[in-house]
Amino acid sequence: MIIKKTFNDSEEVLVSKKELRNFVLRCLEKVGCDHSHAQQLADILICSDYRGHYSHGVNRLGIYVHDLATGSTAPQGEPFIIKQKGGTAWVDGNNLLGAVVGNFCTRLAVQKAKEHGIGMVVAKNSNHFGIAGWYAQYAMEMGCIGMAFTNTSPCVFPTRSSEKALGSNPICFAAPAQSGDNFFLDMASTTVAFGKIEVVDKRGGKTIPPCWGADANGRETTNPKVVLNGGGLQPLGGSEPTGGYKGTGLCMMVEVLCGILGGAAFGKNVRMWQTTDTTADLGQCFMAIDPECFAPGFAERLQSFLDQTRSSDAIDDDPILVAGDPERAHMAMCDDLDGLVYKKSQLKHLADLANRYDVEMLKTKVHLSAQQA
Amino acid sequence: MIIKKTFNDSEEVLVSKKELRNFVLRCLEKVGCDHSHAQQLADILICSDYRGHYSHGVNRLGIYVHDLATGSTAPQGEPFIIKQKGGTAWVDGNNLLGAVVGNFCTRLAVQKAKEHGIGMVVAKNSNHFGIAGWYAQYAMEMGCIGMAFTNTSPCVFPTRSSEKALGSNPICFAAPAQSGDNFFLDMASTTVAFGKIEVVDKRGGKTIPPCWGADANGRETTNPKVVLNGGGLQPLGGSEPTGGYKGTGLCMMVEVLCGILGGAAFGKNVRMWQTTDTTADLGQCFMAIDPECFAPGFAERLQSFLDQTRSSDAIDDDPILVAGDPERAHMAMCDDLDGLVYKKSQLKHLADLANRYDVEMLKTKVHLSAQQA
Repeated sequence: MIIKKTFNDSEEVLVSKKELRNFVLRCLEKVGCDHSHAQQLADILICSDYRGHYSHGVNRLGIYVHDLATGSTAPQGEPFIIKQKGGTAWVDGNNLLGAVVGNFCTRLAVQKAKEHGIGMVVAKNSNHFGIAGWYAQYAMEMGCIGMAFTNTSPCVFPTRSSEKALGSNPICFAAPAQSGDNFFLDMASTTVAFGKIEVVDKRGGKTIPPCWGADANGRETTNPKVVLNGGGLQPLGGSEPTGGYKGTGLCMMVEVLCGILGGAAFGKNVRMWQTTDTTADLGQCFMAIDPECFAPGFAERLQSFLDQTRSSDAIDDDPILVAGDPERAHMAMCDDLDGLVYKKSQLKHLADLANRYDVEMLKTKVHLSAQQA
Repeated sequence: MIIKKTFNDSEEVLVSKKELRNFVLRCLEKVGCDHSHAQQLADILICSDYRGHYSHGVNRLGIYVHDLATGSTAPQGEPFIIKQKGGTAWVDGNNLLGAVVGNFCTRLAVQKAKEHGIGMVVAKNSNHFGIAGWYAQYAMEMGCIGMAFTNTSPCVFPTRSSEKALGSNPICFAAPAQSGDNFFLDMASTTVAFGKIEVVDKRGGKTIPPCWGADANGRETTNPKVVLNGGGLQPLGGSEPTGGYKGTGLCMMVEVLCGILGGAAFGKNVRMWQTTDTTADLGQCFMAIDPECFAPGFAERLQSFLDQTRSSDAIDDDPILVAGDPERAHMAMCDDLDGLVYKKSQLKHLADLANRYDVEMLKTKVHLSAQQA
């Protein structure tokens, strides 16, 4: 581990995983969610916060609870296989929580990879599945390369377009190296997530780098407020001269694997974020590849590729990272502290949720250094 | 077709496909290349120029001829399957021309997709395989989604690194829609190819956009000469603040699928471009997915996604394109002219080659409007 993150007593609080988990279960079960489904969603939200991807963790609990409470997401039932052949399967997510659909599909993909060398499962009729890395992580724990993709609500301007016609469609690819190390790419096909622009704005920043966002007409802007007030995201690469058409292409590739292959909603037909007037009908794609089917020594070779990249000469003092290193640093910090770290402001959302649904609020953990102080 | 390209009599010449093909065969066979291998390479070079990807077409013939002449690439033999299971196979490219290895692997991947729903074939011991789209195109013609990846000689600075430790590792993904239309993504995982920077420089341009290239120490520069004189390419997204770490991640993902899975050379161990002191030992990955295994109506749905994207509101007068549209415009122009279009300056390379290897130079075709003038 080359980088280290540290806990900030004045702004941050610690919550035990168990405490968070029980709180999530209380909220979800209050709106009728199947216990096993609630457990699955709790696990993925915890995983997300543990990895430091707060935009996809418990911050979004209110949305899932609302979707269940309004009947927009089904609280009970099971996904099912519509058809399967060799390494492939097409699944109906039965409008269940994305976590439930994703777990079902990724287990099936791994099983198929073990039998056929490679497995690919595509679901329709799913919901927001949280952090894509959760599914790839499972495949990796089973000794496979894992991949996961989903379409999302439109928030991205395709190159030259003034309409938000694409989602931020993530690409996740994780491969196991040695001693628990791995290559772990989990990225939106936009330059950044909305959350990163919100952070700049909340801290009083007046400009964001080019390539991040666009105004309401799709033109690149470096003003965070313009992006946040009716603007949208730019695909990876930003505008056309800086390669944004490649990001648009990747974004569309993910849509082909998800909405188009799955027969789900696609492109600008996906319902708008945080609306519940129709079901989400998201399309999702899960792949697993058994490296044993190719050259022997995969993990060793991957390890030397990771080591070689990390130890190549650096431009300045910033350490060279491979995909997954920032998350590893965050998880190491949580492990040291034996809990999940939140900004104090993040807990307000949970307190509101506890009030609204009349469930007991979670308790924060006293941090050792705070105790000693 | 929304966009149209036109022929420029003063700068461009026309060559018939047949004439080009015979010239390529003459050069390759002169250095002992198997006739069928030479045909395969000729086809792919023609395809590349026909699509407008001149950087990967006949411009590179001299490199292939040199690799064969020096014995760095084997002129005879066949690739072979080392092992296979279900939808997967691992292939030894036997140090043959990349075109031969790629054709072998992509045919095998399609055959496996027809049997198992998905096929994935990874090769080691291959050589430069030309335009990745050629292989995806074949899969598409067989009714499949096609994907192709290769590692390449190091030319890219990973984020924060001052070493060119990664190749420009292309990602190709092609999917068939209706009436011959398709989604055809074929991109390097860099913002641009070297060729694009050379063009700016040759035309006297003093600056390139940010995100394209870096100086010899890996720092972003907008001076084309600095990139061309010992500098290198930036991954898609450019430097770190504009998302370059995602491009680095994609570049490394391709390397995992190619060099690491295949047991070939990888990362900065791949031999430098245009050297022949060792074999190239490139790793390459080919996938085919049978859309029939998922939701019925794939081609119709993809067509409406393409149509919807192309017809979304535009920022200004530039038409909105989907991946493959620029190539379609170029192919339509060649079809109209019944030949391949080259800058006059491009033919100098071929004339030199004809001289060096003492083969008959190709003849250009008289263009109708030039004839009439």
